[in-house]
Amino acid sequence: MSSPMSSPMSARRIARLQQPFAMRLGGALQAGEIAFETWGAPNAARDNGILIFTGLSPSAHAASSAQDVAPGWWEDMIGPGRPFDTGRWFVVCVNSLGSCYGSTGPASIDPDTGQPYQLRFPVLTVEDIARGGHEVVRSLGLGSLAVVAGPSLGGMSAHACCALYPGFARGLISISTGVRSTPFAIALRSLQREMIRRDPAWADGDYSPDAPPISGMRLARKLGMITYRSADEWQLRFGRERASLGRRSGDPFGIDFEIESYLEAQAAKFVGQFDANCYLYLSRAMDLFDLAEHGGSVSAALKRSALQRALVIGVETDLLFPLAGQRELAKGLIQAGVETRFEPLASIQGHDAFLVDMERFRPVVDEFLRGL
Amino acid sequence: MSSPMSSPMSARRIARLQQPFAMRLGGALQAGEIAFETWGAPNAARDNGILIFTGLSPSAHAASSAQDVAPGWWEDMIGPGRPFDTGRWFVVCVNSLGSCYGSTGPASIDPDTGQPYQLRFPVLTVEDIARGGHEVVRSLGLGSLAVVAGPSLGGMSAHACCALYPGFARGLISISTGVRSTPFAIALRSLQREMIRRDPAWADGDYSPDAPPISGMRLARKLGMITYRSADEWQLRFGRERASLGRRSGDPFGIDFEIESYLEAQAAKFVGQFDANCYLYLSRAMDLFDLAEHGGSVSAALKRSALQRALVIGVETDLLFPLAGQRELAKGLIQAGVETRFEPLASIQGHDAFLVDMERFRPVVDEFLRGL
Repeated sequence: MSSPMSSPMSARRIARLQQPFAMRLGGALQAGEIAFETWGAPNAARDNGILIFTGLSPSAHAASSAQDVAPGWWEDMIGPGRPFDTGRWFVVCVNSLGSCYGSTGPASIDPDTGQPYQLRFPVLTVEDIARGGHEVVRSLGLGSLAVVAGPSLGGMSAHACCALYPGFARGLISISTGVRSTPFAIALRSLQREMIRRDPAWADGDYSPDAPPISGMRLARKLGMITYRSADEWQLRFGRERASLGRRSGDPFGIDFEIESYLEAQAAKFVGQFDANCYLYLSRAMDLFDLAEHGGSVSAALKRSALQRALVIGVETDLLFPLAGQRELAKGLIQAGVETRFEPLASIQGHDAFLVDMERFRPVVDEFLRGL
Repeated sequence: MSSPMSSPMSARRIARLQQPFAMRLGGALQAGEIAFETWGAPNAARDNGILIFTGLSPSAHAASSAQDVAPGWWEDMIGPGRPFDTGRWFVVCVNSLGSCYGSTGPASIDPDTGQPYQLRFPVLTVEDIARGGHEVVRSLGLGSLAVVAGPSLGGMSAHACCALYPGFARGLISISTGVRSTPFAIALRSLQREMIRRDPAWADGDYSPDAPPISGMRLARKLGMITYRSADEWQLRFGRERASLGRRSGDPFGIDFEIESYLEAQAAKFVGQFDANCYLYLSRAMDLFDLAEHGGSVSAALKRSALQRALVIGVETDLLFPLAGQRELAKGLIQAGVETRFEPLASIQGHDAFLVDMERFRPVVDEFLRGL
C-alpha cells in the first residue's frame, strides 16, 4: 500500500464527480472527487480501456510510472509485457470512493462545514464506489471498457459496475471476491469494526487526525492479516519458532512466538497509513453488498450485465471468499451466457494471494487478456 | 458453561494440592486447590476411573447429579446408559488449575498477601493443569485410570497427563485437540489476549472484581465464537438474514445482520461469568504447550505414555485444530504401539462440535468405551 506521503512524486490525477453525487442509501456529496492513475494510452477507437478497482486498503498507485517510480501494489501485473500490458491496454486504477488516498471519504473536508466528514459522511455502498469508477472512465473520454477488474472489494466493485451499467464493460476479471459476503466474513469484519469503535480514542468517530484510535486499528489490522493469509502458509513460514527477542521484560503477556512478531510488524506498518473512519465505511460496504439487489437475483444481475467474457479466479485457502463461492459465480456467469473461464488456484497465501503469488496469478490473467 | 452462582445446589468437591505446588515454569502455590465433581463410583479394584479435563472455559460441572440437577456442559455424554456410562465407570471431571470455578487461579486469594493473585500468579502450563488432575485422582484413592479424556485444552491436558505419568492411564480419548498449537491458532489466541490487555479497564491485570475489562472480554469472546464454529454452519443458520431489530438508532455502525446479533448475545452471556486474567493464563497455556518437550519429540512422548488404547476424534471444519493434525496424531499413536482408532467427523459445527453435535460424538465415544 502506498501512502499519500510515501513518495515525493505523484502520478495521481483527480476526477470531479457530478454534483451533487447522490449516494445509494441516502445523502449526497457536494464536491466529490475520485483519485486515479493511468498507464498506457487510449487507442484510436478508445475501446482498449481496463478499469481496476482495488481491495479495501490500497491507493490508486497500482504500478510505477515515469510520474511516480515507486512500486505500486500490483507492480508485477501492470506494465509493458506484463499481464495488463500497457503497450496494448489503457489501464486505469481508481482509489475507491470513501478511501483516504485522494478520493472523497470520511476523512475529507465537508464543504458544508469546513470540517472532516467523519461519521457525517453518508453510508457508503459498493455501488457508490462503482459509480465513482464509472465517472472516472467517462471523464477520460471512454464510452465503454474492454475489461473491468478487481480483487476482493475491488471485485465486488467490478461486479457492481457491470450490474449498474449494462454493456459498459465487455470483459470482467473477478479475483478472490464474491457477489455477496458470507456470514463468516461479515462476523470477522463486524468484529474488526467493533475493535476500532471500542477504542476510547475513536471518540464516536470524532477523533482528531493527530490522535487516531491506534489501539483499535492495530487489533483490526492483526485480525485482518490473520484472515488474509492461511494456516498452511504460517505453518511453513513460522511453525512454532520463538520470537528472537524472547519475552519482553516487564510484560508478562508479551510476545512469545515469531508469528506474533510478524503480526505486530504488520499492524505497526498499517497504523498511521489508513484512516479509521474510512476503514469502517469501506468495511461495512463489503458486508452490505448483495448483487442480487440488481434485478432480484444474482443470475438476473449477471444476465443484465451483458458481459461477453469473464475470468473468475479463486484461491483454495481463501477464508473470506471460499473457492466454492467462486465456482458458483463462474457457473452463474456461464448460465447468463457469458463465455467464462474459472481458475481455482492452489496458492497457500489465502485471500491475499493475488498480491503475492505472482507465479500463479500472472499467467492466468495474461492468457485471458491475450485472448481478447 | 456453569457459573459458580448459577445453581444453589453444588456437587463441587475440593482437593488440596501438595504444598507447596511447584509450577513448571517457576513459582509455587502455597494453598492450591482443584475443584472437581464425580459421577458413578469406584469398583472394588478401583480401576474403573475416567478423568475428564475440560476446554478453556467450562467448570467441573460436566453433568447433572443428585447433588446438582442443573445440566452440565457435557450432559448428553455422562450418565447411566450414556457413553461415559456411570453404571460402569467412575467419572471425574476437574476444573483446570488457573480457572475460576473453584480451582486456584489468578482470581484466587494469594495467602501471602490476602489479595487476588492477578498477574502475580505464576505462569501456567498445560502440564500444571495435568498435575492438578492427577492429584485429584490420587486423592480419590485411585492408583491408575481406565481412561483420561478431554476436548480442546482438555485434550492437551490429557496428553500432558499421559506424558508426565507413564502407565497412569490405560486409555486416552483425544478430542479436537493437538499435541501443540499451530501458528494460526496462536495468532488468534494472542490477538484475543491483546484485546483484553488493551482494554483500559484491564489496568495491567489489577482491575477490581466489580470493574472487569468487559469491553476486551466481549471482543475476545466474539473472536472465540468465530473460530469455534464454522463458515458452513453460519451460512446455513444465518445466511445474510438481517437483524430483526434493524440498525440501532443513533449507532451508525450498529448491528445489521443476524450473525452480528448472535455474536452479541454470546459475548453478553460470557462476560461476567469468566475472569479476564484466568482467561489470559489458560489461553497462553495452550500456546505454550508442546508435547515434544517430553522426551525430545512427539513420538518419544507418545511412546513413554505406555498407553494401551486410544481414540482420536477430529472434525472436518475445525479451524483451530485441523483434521490433518488429528490424523498425524493418530498415526503417531499407532507408531508408538498404541491400539488407536481415528474418527474424522463430518460435523459442520467446527471446533465446538463436541459440545453440540451429539449425534456424531456419542456413538463414537460409546463404542470405544464399550470395547474396553
